Formats: sequence, C-alpha cells, structure tokens
Amino acid sequence: MSLTELKQEVFQANLDLVKHGLVIFTWGNVSGVDREKGLVAIKPSGVPYETMKAEDMVILDLEGNVVEGTLRPSSDTPTHLELYREFPNIGSVSHTHSAFAASWAQAGRDIPITGTTQADYFSGDIPCTRDMTQAEIEGEFELNTGKVIVDTFKQRDINPDHIPGVLVKNHAPFAWGKDCNDCVHNSVVLEQVAKMGVYAHMLNPDISMNPHLVKKHFNRKHGPGAYYGQK
Amino acid sequence: MSLTELKQEVFQANLDLVKHGLVIFTWGNVSGVDREKGLVAIKPSGVPYETMKAEDMVILDLEGNVVEGTLRPSSDTPTHLELYREFPNIGSVSHTHSAFAASWAQAGRDIPITGTTQADYFSGDIPCTRDMTQAEIEGEFELNTGKVIVDTFKQRDINPDHIPGVLVKNHAPFAWGKDCNDCVHNSVVLEQVAKMGVYAHMLNPDISMNPHLVKKHFNRKHGPGAYYGQK
Amino acid sequence: MSLTELKQEVFQANLDLVKHGLVIFTWGNVSGVDREKGLVAIKPSGVPYETMKAEDMVILDLEGNVVEGTLRPSSDTPTHLELYREFPNIGSVSHTHSAFAASWAQAGRDIPITGTTQADYFSGDIPCTRDMTQAEIEGEFELNTGKVIVDTFKQRDINPDHIPGVLVKNHAPFAWGKDCNDCVHNSVVLEQVAKMGVYAHMLNPDISMNPHLVKKHFNRKHGPGAYYGQK
Amino acid sequence: MSLTELKQEVFQANLDLVKHGLVIFTWGNVSGVDREKGLVAIKPSGVPYETMKAEDMVILDLEGNVVEGTLRPSSDTPTHLELYREFPNIGSVSHTHSAFAASWAQAGRDIPITGTTQADYFSGDIPCTRDMTQAEIEGEFELNTGKVIVDTFKQRDINPDHIPGVLVKNHAPFAWGKDCNDCVHNSVVLEQVAKMGVYAHMLNPDISMNPHLVKKHFNRKHGPGAYYGQK
Repeated sequence: MSLTELKQEVFQANLDLVKHGLVIFTWGNVSGVDREKGLVAIKPSGVPYETMKAEDMVILDLEGNVVEGTLRPSSDTPTHLELYREFPNIGSVSHTHSAFAASWAQAGRDIPITGTTQADYFSGDIPCTRDMTQAEIEGEFELNTGKVIVDTFKQRDINPDHIPGVLVKNHAPFAWGKDCNDCVHNSVVLEQVAKMGVYAHMLNPDISMNPHLVKKHFNRKHGPGAYYGQK
Repeated sequence: MSLTELKQEVFQANLDLVKHGLVIFTWGNVSGVDREKGLVAIKPSGVPYETMKAEDMVILDLEGNVVEGTLRPSSDTPTHLELYREFPNIGSVSHTHSAFAASWAQAGRDIPITGTTQADYFSGDIPCTRDMTQAEIEGEFELNTGKVIVDTFKQRDINPDHIPGVLVKNHAPFAWGKDCNDCVHNSVVLEQVAKMGVYAHMLNPDISMNPHLVKKHFNRKHGPGAYYGQK
Repeated sequence: MSLTELKQEVFQANLDLVKHGLVIFTWGNVSGVDREKGLVAIKPSGVPYETMKAEDMVILDLEGNVVEGTLRPSSDTPTHLELYREFPNIGSVSHTHSAFAASWAQAGRDIPITGTTQADYFSGDIPCTRDMTQAEIEGEFELNTGKVIVDTFKQRDINPDHIPGVLVKNHAPFAWGKDCNDCVHNSVVLEQVAKMGVYAHMLNPDISMNPHLVKKHFNRKHGPGAYYGQK
Repeated sequence: MSLTELKQEVFQANLDLVKHGLVIFTWGNVSGVDREKGLVAIKPSGVPYETMKAEDMVILDLEGNVVEGTLRPSSDTPTHLELYREFPNIGSVSHTHSAFAASWAQAGRDIPITGTTQADYFSGDIPCTRDMTQAEIEGEFELNTGKVIVDTFKQRDINPDHIPGVLVKNHAPFAWGKDCNDCVHNSVVLEQVAKMGVYAHMLNPDISMNPHLVKKHFNRKHGPGAYYGQK
C-alpha cells in the first residue's frame, strides 16, 4: 500500500467515526500503520471534519518524527505510537469520546463480558486502566497513557489481538484492529456493548456469562475454526 | 408465492431491520418459510447490507440442506429451522442484537409485561432462556439454541403464537410472526418494550399489570373479537 | 373552520406526532373538535401513516355516531369523546405510546414537577390514573378509560386546562390542547419532561421544586400576565 | 464587527443549537455582545426557528434598552445582560433546555468532573445554583436568575472563564464563551458531559477524578501552554 492509499484509508476511517455517531466536533482520531515502511498516518490535531482532506493526514515514523505533512499531528499521537510499538499485530488505532464507553471510563470500571455481542469481538472484559500518577500526568502524558494501557494488558495477561480495545480511566476508549476498517468496527462495537452494559447493569448488577459461551462466540468469528461470514 | 417472491420478501425484511435501527453492520437476519414447499429463504452470512441483493438469499429445506444459492446461509440458520419445525404456525423468524432487548438478555431476565404496548402483541412476559450447558455450547450450538428456546416455551407452557419472541440468555432476541412483515413488526415491538421496561424498572422495580388489562389489549388486536384496524 | 379544514388539521397533527418521534407504526392518534358543530375528526384505526390522506379522517358527533367517512375511527375514539364532553375548553386530543411517558405509565407514577420545562406547560404533576377494575376493562373499555381520566382530574381537583395531559396506568399518555397544534405541542413536552424526569430521578430520587418557581414559569406563558413570545 | 455581522452570528448560533439537538420548539436562545459598542444582539421571544431571519435579532444596550428591532427580545434577556455585566470576558451567552443538563438541574446537583471530556472545557464541577427565594422569583425573576448565577460563581470562587456554564436549579443550563461559536460549542459539551455523567453515576455513584488529570487536560486546550489543535 502506498502512503497515499494509507492516508486515504486513515482519512476515511476518521470520517466513519463521525458517520457512526462516535465523534462530535474534533473529538476523535484514527491512525494506520504501514509495518513494512515503519510509518504511521494520523489525523491532524483539531481540524474540523467538514474541511479535512486526505492529504492533511500527517505521516510519522514510530519514534514520532514527522516525515510528511505540514499540520500538527493529533495530540494523542504518542499514545498511538506506543500501542504500535508494543502490540506488534495491530494495523490501526482509534480514539473517541463515545458517550457510553466514556461513561464506563469515568466510572473507572471494566466493561464486563455479559453478552455475545461483546464475545463476538472481545474474548473477555474490556479493561479500564489504573489511575495515572502525578508524575505520569505532568511528564510525557500522552506517551504515558500508552504505557499505562500496555501495562494493563501485560499485568492482566490480556492478548491485545483478542481484546482490541481499552478504557482509559476518567478519559475514554481506545480501540485497534488489523486495519483501519477493522479498527473503526471495533470502536463501534465497544460503544454498543458499553451501551448494552449500562442498561444490563441497571437491570441486574450481578450479571455473569458462561465462559464456554464466550469462547464459542469468539471462535465463531476468529481463529482457525471460524465459520461466520463467507469463505 | 414463488421462491423469487419469498427471497424478495426476506431480503426486504432484512433491510427493514436496518431501517428500524435494530441492526448495525451485519448483526441480524430474517428468514421466511414456504410451508407448502417446505423451503426456507434466509440471509447469507456476514454480507454487508449495502451490497446484498434479493437473489443472494439462500434457500434451504427444513433439514438444512441448501437447495438454491451459492453463498453460505446465516450461521444462525439451524436456530431458525428448529423454530420452524417446532412452531408450526410461524412463517418468518428474525434475530437481532437490538440494544435494549440484548440488555435484558444480558441481565438474564424476562421482560415482564407491564404495559399495553407489550400486551398489544405479546400476551404475557417475554421469556429469557436458561443457561446452556457446556455440551450444548460445544456441540451443535445454533441447533441447541433453537432447542433451548423451544424447551422454554414448552416447559413454561407458553404459546409461541401469542408470545412471538424470546430472549436468548447472554445473547439477544429472536422474534417471529405469520410472515416477514409481521416478524419485523414484532422485532420492533420487542425492542420498544425492552426500552420502556428498562426505564419503567428504574422508576419502580416492583411494577405489575392487571391481567384483565393484558387480556383486553391482546384481544383487541388478536383473535375472533379483535376490533383494532380496518375490517 | 370547515370540516375539510378540520380534517386537514387533524391529518397534519397525526403526521406531526411521527415527525416528532412520538409514534412508530400506527401507535398514535389525534382528533380535533369543532365545538360549534359538535363534530370531531379523528384518525382512522390502524391505517399506515405513509398512505393515509386527509380525507380518510372520520367525522363523528360527540355521542360517537359516524357522520362522515368510510373507515373505522381509531379504536380509542370513545376515550377522546369522553374527554371532549367533560373538558369543555379543549379543542384537540392526542394519544401516543411515546417511550418515556409510557415508562412512567408502566411504573404507575405521576411525573412529578421538578423543572421549568414542565412548569412552562403544566402547572403541576402530570397524574397517573388508578388501576381500572375488571368490570371497567371488560365493559366499554375505551369509554371507561376516558371516565377514569376524568375522575382522576375531578378527585384530585386538577384543572385540565392547566395540566393538559395524563398517564393512563400501565398504558401510555393522552394529551390535549386548545387546538391540534397546541395538542401536539403538549404531547412533545410531555415526552420530553418524562425523559428528563427519568434521568433526574436516577440522580436524585428525592427531588422537589419550589412552588413559587412553578407558578412563575406557568404564568410567564399562560394567563393574563403572560410575557413570553410576541404580542 | 458591524451590528449586521453580529446579528448574523447570533442568528446562526441559534440555528446551531437546533442542529446539535439541544433545542426543540423555541426553547433556547443565544446572544452575542459587542463590547466596544456596549450592545447585545439576542433572539426574539417565541419566534419559530423555521421562519426566523437574521434581521429579527433584537439589539439592546447592557441596561436592557432596545436600540434596534421591532420584536420583543427573549424573555431571558435580563439574565444574559447580568452575565455580560458581571463576567467581563465573555462574548456570548446561550440558554437551552437540553435534556441531560436539565436533568442534573432538576436533580439540583452539580455535574461533578469525572472525565477528560469535561476537563477539556471546564476546569472543575459545573455548579448548580441554589434555590431562589419567593421574593427573587416574584420580583425581577430573570434578572435575579442572573444574579444567582453570578453569586454562585463568586461565593464558590469559580472563574467563569474556566467554567463556562452553569445549571440553574430546577430549570436548565446557561453556557457562555468568547464568541457565539465558542458559546454553542460549550453548550454542546455541557450536554454531552451531562449525558456521560448520568450513565457514569449509574455505574458508580462514588466516582472521582485525579485533580492532576483535570488540570492537565484543561491546560492542553487552554492558556499559554496549550498544545491541542493547529497554531
């Protein structure tokens, strides 16, 4: 894929977040990585979606040096880059303030797995990160946000390829995927399961789900035995 | 009705689920049965609604043999077929992950009848199935989902013609009807009463409804004394 | 106003309920009365909004005799007529199953006045009727629904011109107004305050509102001292 | 900026409230001030948005004398003027009955800061005013509403430039900003954080947020060290 194509994909994915109702104003960003070239395309910071063009996407290397583009990259860029460096199989990262997922993040709670809607895409609970320290916040904040996400997955032994999203405490969700399309898809699912989770929790605070059912649904869509969709 | 007409009806019903906001991505399916021919038309698995055509609908017999069509049928096909085999009067089955109904399913609770909106279409509570066993899940899962639905109706002595829908625990709703149009209608009602039920429950966890009022409303629209609508 | 004009107004008001998101399928109806002629125009029963025309509106006298029109009037017609007979100043009645108002009705609770949004249109709580008896339900049900509404207002000494709406227990709201436009307006307000009330109740189950503030806001819009809007 | 331009801006801002779903019917108003001229443009009272034109905006001085325009100004004008007099840096004021913010106002509660969505625009809790006295209500009500807002900020030592919005108890939100665009923006944010707050509160009534994180996010967008957006 050429850089022009990558920019086009990332641009389209940013618009798709708006189309799916996950983003108002400029509150979201999607990036995509070209693993061979080691380059990332990301939305510029604070540019209105109405006037944004594919060529406005900023190209950076994985250390954060701008390689192409005249606009400032998204202020969340260091978070995206940390995820690309530490989660080697992901091809795209998104960040939104979608309302229901942000509510769980504000509540400081994992979204527990209680339904097949979640199990079709996430093999378990969607974790919420720990509080960041004063030093982490006042230092390289966006980089540290990425580090805290990565730590959460490592310490809880979660495979980011099987749980393609996270809640950053008192903030909002990040999601990722194989490519930009998959990443937007996972953002939409995360918001939808966050919504169902709010109402389900209201109806029954003590819900649980049979782990065999979780595994069955995840494997219907993922891995060697998957049989959902067309061949 | 010719098979071409049946495919067209089933195709349209699938689009109607999207139009009514019950389905995002490919998370839903409707089928219709021709009882005389013993053939079922169903949505293909995982095909985007934007590009799907009426001729993509797959035709199967009631044992699940594909009779016409080149695409894989919906992965939920065995559930639909079990319902057609066991509920002899139904002409169409739908499955969605509509958010409020799925929330009740995740909470593992029946939607209690507390209003005439429900009573106009459902003569009582909309049942939630029991947990499936590990063997049921790891075996013929979708077939067993159908069997658990049927068992729920049998054991609780519920007439599926009077309660045209169910919540599959930790999963989502199925609904049915005389024909595709009626089936989509019941899916919309199920989601709407699920929504009202969430808020009503929040306002008053101990709600109940006069059984005479339930009966009155159901009979206004159904059965020999019905007087709603035009003759 | 000619009957043709009244039919046109009633027809438009029925479409407006759909436009404002209060009605799905055929779950709503508006009527209007010509007090001089003693005639009511009302939506026909169960006719889809997409194909309904102004001339389909049915004309009845206040005793329920059809004077003009070939279609069956709304099955809720006897409720409307009872309200016209007992509430002499109202010019239009509407009935919907709008979701938040129906939730309060299902919860069997008045919508307490806790904000100026309600006080701008309703001078106090929006009452929820009592349970109907088996005899009332099995008898002339829709007429008795009207009688129970009227009784609620009489027994609680509520002025229907100042509280232009009601929740019928386990059912849904009715609203009214000086004319069709005012009536639709009040239906929209009722749903909106029902929505705010659900969330406010969640945040604080013990809310109250200063009665002076209620009075002030109601009188800003109504009565001799009103100063909202243009002269 | 000419008065014609100010009227155009204020007119557009009023329409933007509708576009963002914050206003139904005529339940909202935006004004803008020209600090050099000491003149305010504000929406006329109770005029439908569909027919309203830019030239219908009413021009007043800061004491409330109409300088230009034939229509009555918004009945909330005295509140706007009080805010302009007491908050010297603000250029625009808006008032809506947006549903989630109004729910917090009805609940009589501050919107606690629990997420970065709020911290990006508000440096702390969004305050809810105290009950007004009978004398305040029966006297110059709208002026006194402004006074109570100003008192709330003074007594709690809140900087209105850092918390550009308020909940008036049992009523609804007011918001403000540097100019009309900023003001509408803050109204949208206020509603969005009110929504997230309702759901977050439901999931965890005891939420809090690290004050360092609040400060970091506010300063990312505001003040000398801001680094969000383009230069």
